[in-house]
Formats: sequence, structure tokens, C-alpha cells
Amino acid sequence: MKINYCSQCGSDNVEFRVPDGDNRPRFICANCNFVHYQNPNIVAGCLVTHDEKILVCKRAIEPRRNTWTLPAGFMENHETVEQAAARETWEEARAEVDIHGLFTLLNLPHINQVYMIYYGSLVGSQFSPGPESAAVNLVGVEDIPWQELAFPTIRETLRLYIEDLEYGEVRFHCGDIIRPLVLSNPRNAWLANRKTR
Amino acid sequence: MKINYCSQCGSDNVEFRVPDGDNRPRFICANCNFVHYQNPNIVAGCLVTHDEKILVCKRAIEPRRNTWTLPAGFMENHETVEQAAARETWEEARAEVDIHGLFTLLNLPHINQVYMIYYGSLVGSQFSPGPESAAVNLVGVEDIPWQELAFPTIRETLRLYIEDLEYGEVRFHCGDIIRPLVLSNPRNAWLANRKTR
Repeated sequence: MKINYCSQCGSDNVEFRVPDGDNRPRFICANCNFVHYQNPNIVAGCLVTHDEKILVCKRAIEPRRNTWTLPAGFMENHETVEQAAARETWEEARAEVDIHGLFTLLNLPHINQVYMIYYGSLVGSQFSPGPESAAVNLVGVEDIPWQELAFPTIRETLRLYIEDLEYGEVRFHCGDIIRPLVLSNPRNAWLANRKTR
Repeated sequence: MKINYCSQCGSDNVEFRVPDGDNRPRFICANCNFVHYQNPNIVAGCLVTHDEKILVCKRAIEPRRNTWTLPAGFMENHETVEQAAARETWEEARAEVDIHGLFTLLNLPHINQVYMIYYGSLVGSQFSPGPESAAVNLVGVEDIPWQELAFPTIRETLRLYIEDLEYGEVRFHCGDIIRPLVLSNPRNAWLANRKTR
């Protein structure tokens, strides 16, 4: 994102250049020398199960309104990734989750995001749509709405979960979501550099 | 960090309040409505081994100049966490690493950082100090300079590695680095909520 004005001193004399001792260009205020660093964000979420079904949310907001997703969102300051995943599960699905561990770590270098999806089980049996969801359902593996999923990260996470169900153990998977430079369909993306343990 | 001026329109009318539909205060421009989100950063690094020794760097810069660390630094836009870890290994230790997998994921909610340290092996046998390092050494487990380590994340990562050497397998460890509110010594911090798999 372009920085037009320095957030610290208000100067409009913001240069885009490599700082001394650095190796890539940053937005630097020529007046007060403040460097406006820009770094990737973490998206934290949960694959929550109950009675062998998976908790999915129908998005009530853009992007990808009316498609299905797992509860997930941007990690905030002053929390852990796991806390962020549990908070998003509460905010989007009004569900309390007992987190067992990290399930997928997916890089999206083209949009500067790192997805970290935990797996866990529903505490109790209550859930309902939070303000960003139009509906929340428990779906069996055979009823996953593959054609109406919100994001490639969600599709790949669900695919890996089904693979682990067949394997007999929930493992930890890393990989990168790669998008071609020329896109016919923005959902056209695939998993690369996969590592499972 | 306080936002004094809007980075987009330059207005000094920046409010700190909860945006509509949100649940926590952000810096919002009252002129153009731009929301200045602030989120945690990822620090990526590597525990690199060669002949059963560990690659460590003596810091040439602040913070913690002249203490020892593993090569690690802020993940940049347009790269994966693993690429960031390998890049930092090159920048700080002029070493090429063959990454085997993620080793530790440590939350530091008090400073809004998430450390992700990979383990890997040195490719070839070449290494030397990069611009931010005063020295780079391969040290045996018995020669780790415990009293001169740069950060609690590095100490805990090395401790967990030694534990895994005794266990006989390099595993994946998550946890939080907790610091007491009243600090006698800034290195006084401990590992909590640990999960190993």
C-alpha cells in the first residue's frame, strides 16, 4: 500500500527507496526519517468438528459473500495465534472450541498473508451465526459445498483434513497457495511445496 | 504505534475509536475514513546444524548487540515463511540451508510478534558473518553460550532442540513466551502453553 503522508510528522515528502543498511525499498519520510514497514499478516482460524461433522460458516460480508468458509480472520495485536483462532470461531460461529493443535500453515505470498488453521472440537453443542455470518452449519464430509467455498486456503484445508481422516491421524501440513499471474478465475490457485508431518 | 496523520490523505484528524461493525479501537481518519490497522509480525529463522553442531550468530547491531542468536528476522511481503527463514540465514550467516521443517512457533503477545523457527542442515560447509553479525560459529550443544543469548525465543528454541535430541526425534513445538508485567530483568520470561507433536 502506498504511503502518501508520514503517519508520524505529516510530511508529504515520503520517498520509496532502500534505507541505509537495508536491501529492499520502503516508504521513508524525508522529513523525520520514519520508515513505514509493511509486512505479511496472519489469518488464524479453526477446523472445528462435532459428531464427525465440520463447522462451516456462510459469509454475510464481502469478499465472497454467500460462500462457505471455516471461521478465520486476521490475528490482532496482544493475542496468540491460537487465541486469535478461538476468538474468530466465537465471533463468526458463536462456538466455543477446544483446540487440539495446528493443522495447516499456508503461505499466500501474492497477497502477503499466512493462514494458520487449527483443529479442535466443539465445546457443548451450541453455535449460531455471528455478525459476519449468514448461517453456520455442521456438515458431513460428503456434504462439503466444494463449489461454493470462499477461498483456496479453505478448500485445501478441507482436502487435507479428508486425507488425514483416511490416513487415520490428524497431522500438520505446510504449503504455499500459488496463483498464476494471468488469472481466468480468481479461485484458480493450487497448493505447492507441501510438507506433512 | 500512534498514528498522528493519515498516511492516505494527510489529515491530522485521526481518531482512535472502534469502527462500525468492529469490536476494538483502531486509528481511523475522520477525513477520508481510512482505517490504519496494526497487526502482529512474523519473525522467521532457522536452527541450522552441521556435524551435530548448531550455527549461531553474534549480533553486530542493537538490540542485544554482542549476544548470540540464531539467524532470524522479520518476514517480508511477497515471500513465504520458509523463504524468509532461509533468506535471514543467508543475510546473517552467509549460509545456505536445506530446511527440513518447522521446529518452533512461539507467540510473544506483549510485543506482537510470532516467531517461527525452522530446522535444517547446512548446505556445503561455508558460512561467514553478514552485515548484521559480528561472528558466526558452529557450536556443540555443550558449548551453547546460555548466559549470552539474545532473546528468550532463542533460548527456548535451543532448549527444545536439546530435549528433542534426547527424545531421538526433532518434533514441532508451539508455545507462548510470557513476560511478567513488572520486570527486574528483561530476559526474565518463560515458555507457557507448550504443545509438542
